[in-house]
Amino acid sequence: MRKTLLWMVVVGTEKGAAIKGCFRRIRSALSLAREPWPVSSAAARARAGGRFRARRRRTVSPAQPLASASCPRRAHGLPCSSGCGAGGPSGEAGGRGQGGEGRPRSTARRTSGIPGFREGRRGRGSVGPACRKGPRVTSHWACVKRKAEIPAFRLALIQLQVSSVKSDNLTRACGLIWEAAKQGAKIVSLPECFNSPYGTKYFPEYAEKIPGDSTQKLSEVAKKCSIYVIGGSIPEEDAGKLYNTCAVFGPDGTLLVKHRKLHLFDIDVPGKITFQESKTLSPGDSFSTFDTPYCRVGLGICYDIRFAELAQIYAQRGCQLLVYPAAFNLTTGPAHWELLQRGRAVDNQVYVATASPARDDKASYVAWGHSTVVSPWGEVLVKAGTEEMIVYSDIDLKKLAEIRQQIPVFSQKRSDLYAVEAKKP
Amino acid sequence: MRKTLLWMVVVGTEKGAAIKGCFRRIRSALSLAREPWPVSSAAARARAGGRFRARRRRTVSPAQPLASASCPRRAHGLPCSSGCGAGGPSGEAGGRGQGGEGRPRSTARRTSGIPGFREGRRGRGSVGPACRKGPRVTSHWACVKRKAEIPAFRLALIQLQVSSVKSDNLTRACGLIWEAAKQGAKIVSLPECFNSPYGTKYFPEYAEKIPGDSTQKLSEVAKKCSIYVIGGSIPEEDAGKLYNTCAVFGPDGTLLVKHRKLHLFDIDVPGKITFQESKTLSPGDSFSTFDTPYCRVGLGICYDIRFAELAQIYAQRGCQLLVYPAAFNLTTGPAHWELLQRGRAVDNQVYVATASPARDDKASYVAWGHSTVVSPWGEVLVKAGTEEMIVYSDIDLKKLAEIRQQIPVFSQKRSDLYAVEAKKP
Repeated sequence: MRKTLLWMVVVGTEKGAAIKGCFRRIRSALSLAREPWPVSSAAARARAGGRFRARRRRTVSPAQPLASASCPRRAHGLPCSSGCGAGGPSGEAGGRGQGGEGRPRSTARRTSGIPGFREGRRGRGSVGPACRKGPRVTSHWACVKRKAEIPAFRLALIQLQVSSVKSDNLTRACGLIWEAAKQGAKIVSLPECFNSPYGTKYFPEYAEKIPGDSTQKLSEVAKKCSIYVIGGSIPEEDAGKLYNTCAVFGPDGTLLVKHRKLHLFDIDVPGKITFQESKTLSPGDSFSTFDTPYCRVGLGICYDIRFAELAQIYAQRGCQLLVYPAAFNLTTGPAHWELLQRGRAVDNQVYVATASPARDDKASYVAWGHSTVVSPWGEVLVKAGTEEMIVYSDIDLKKLAEIRQQIPVFSQKRSDLYAVEAKKP
Repeated sequence: MRKTLLWMVVVGTEKGAAIKGCFRRIRSALSLAREPWPVSSAAARARAGGRFRARRRRTVSPAQPLASASCPRRAHGLPCSSGCGAGGPSGEAGGRGQGGEGRPRSTARRTSGIPGFREGRRGRGSVGPACRKGPRVTSHWACVKRKAEIPAFRLALIQLQVSSVKSDNLTRACGLIWEAAKQGAKIVSLPECFNSPYGTKYFPEYAEKIPGDSTQKLSEVAKKCSIYVIGGSIPEEDAGKLYNTCAVFGPDGTLLVKHRKLHLFDIDVPGKITFQESKTLSPGDSFSTFDTPYCRVGLGICYDIRFAELAQIYAQRGCQLLVYPAAFNLTTGPAHWELLQRGRAVDNQVYVATASPARDDKASYVAWGHSTVVSPWGEVLVKAGTEEMIVYSDIDLKKLAEIRQQIPVFSQKRSDLYAVEAKKP
């Protein structure tokens, strides 16, 4: 913290107008240090175990000329944040990546999370820009020489130990989100059924409206940490029906999208696993994506990952990261958990992440654990064990762009022969 | 051989009318023993190394009542061969599985390969039916008590060491097919570009018409062995254009289908692999399946496997086995070879097989090898090394049916939300 403050003062003296922004960052850092959510002993263990495990990737890469001759940050749909005066989408403030040209400088604090700003390895939510050395930057093309222009950001997956006490689940989930934000995560995902044990008998008892108590807490923590929170899933009650629903909140706490599980988990592997989610739940009926300043994200819940078409449609719609809060079991987990993720990643040349509850061998449904992030090349970048922990991975969208250029499957698809078609917007 | 002859005589005395058929089997067995194709030293090595490696599966299973009350062999599209008088499709004789009711008994010899007939572990192309013990079978339902009713058969993949001498490639390929048939294989696949080195500079030189010299030899060996031969691929010349084409021959030597590679291999992974198949080749423009008495088979060539839509359409069309003659390289091989096969298998609940050339480190294009068979559960059933060899796997379609029942993804797809559509028949 002391180093951060010192750095901020040094940078501030270089650029008088930035001092005000620095103080905002200081306030933010102090606020993050306060930890309004108590972290349980389990969370403390998770923090110890949740050290950064992702394969290290260079996020500052040699400059490459971009197709657009205009400000490259704008070309990527990002707000300008280096003094060249270019506006951009609302970025983390709005979270939709739509409109927002000429964004007022009052939101500058939030640009600390925008790619192109190189964050410290343990950057506490807000640290300085990559161009910390050298003269004041007056145009992006000068800055490009030292900065990565294609976004990179840190993703965190919370492998929560879900208990039967809803309030405890919520408290610990928020504490771990807070912890992940402190470690520099910009998008954090909880697991499927994070506030309730997983089982058809529990869904009616734990179900809530959205917005409701659980999602209100997620909204608050997202706003407090100024990050995107993918709220795993909770049993949702709406108009007399129950759904398995994932709510996503932006850095300002607004609900960005609500994904209701499309494919209900009805399987019967005799002697191993039998489950009929459709006994109590109803399926959703729409696709769910949301925009961030980094990339578009597609959502599925657990069993949704078995259906390749969903991922194909998300890729068609420009998603570069697919997140599946999920709870595979001890039969399908070892057989298909990693395979399905790697398959979706390679077929669609996207990053794929799954967030599972931690394993509880005493539960009626024992989750597989092993929350994972897979690269568009099909590599497992990070994989949790079975206990409660946070795993982190730096999502490098430059790498994704390279893979798509090297093996250009999207342009090679035979649209004269076949098509995957979405029947809803 | 002596045992086979003895058995045939014993069975023959049980049923006078069958004696004529027995002599046919004897002639067939003697014919197979002759080996008209010389097997090279490499092939001999392959024979030694090509011992049956597949995970052993029970092919005789407890009887299960079938949906159809009529003859269960006919219900599976198989010709009756146990004396109940039921006709069926043309089976191995015709290979199309269409029509052929009241098939004359003169084709009985070929039914030795029809599932429901339990073959010896090293059944030399034609051995006896499963119902060898007990009284004469007069109806299928009596026989069902001891027979598997859902087809199982042996698949062989020829991992050929491809040289620059076309005639040598052809001779050795036919020798290895012969060898595979002797080991009981009913469908045998060669690798991509089996008669020519793989490379754009070779394609014009090695290209042939179909039918032509190479495919004529495949037709002959298919007929001689009375098996299905998936002819890997060869550079094909047609109307001034070149294609990468797989020709499939039935047990009577007829050309069943011709698959031209749909997705040309154009990739550029700097410093690792750059290839532009489209420099010399043209793509095909149709899907390719063929029917056997065991199941419907879908075809792709190498890079086609990257495109999930092709496999999805084949699964929609009832394929239970997808075969991809292929030649991945030392970059994409370790990264994606097994992953893509396992992904296609699990997503579509089908068996997937790939036949690669053996690795030749001196070639301009070094193939990955590791010809593989994957089950619908995503398990690798058999995987070759890098040298020339034959690998075998028993394809158990009862297992496939069980998996489809346990995890019924086909009935769970959300056709109200999405569809994979073929734009050609």
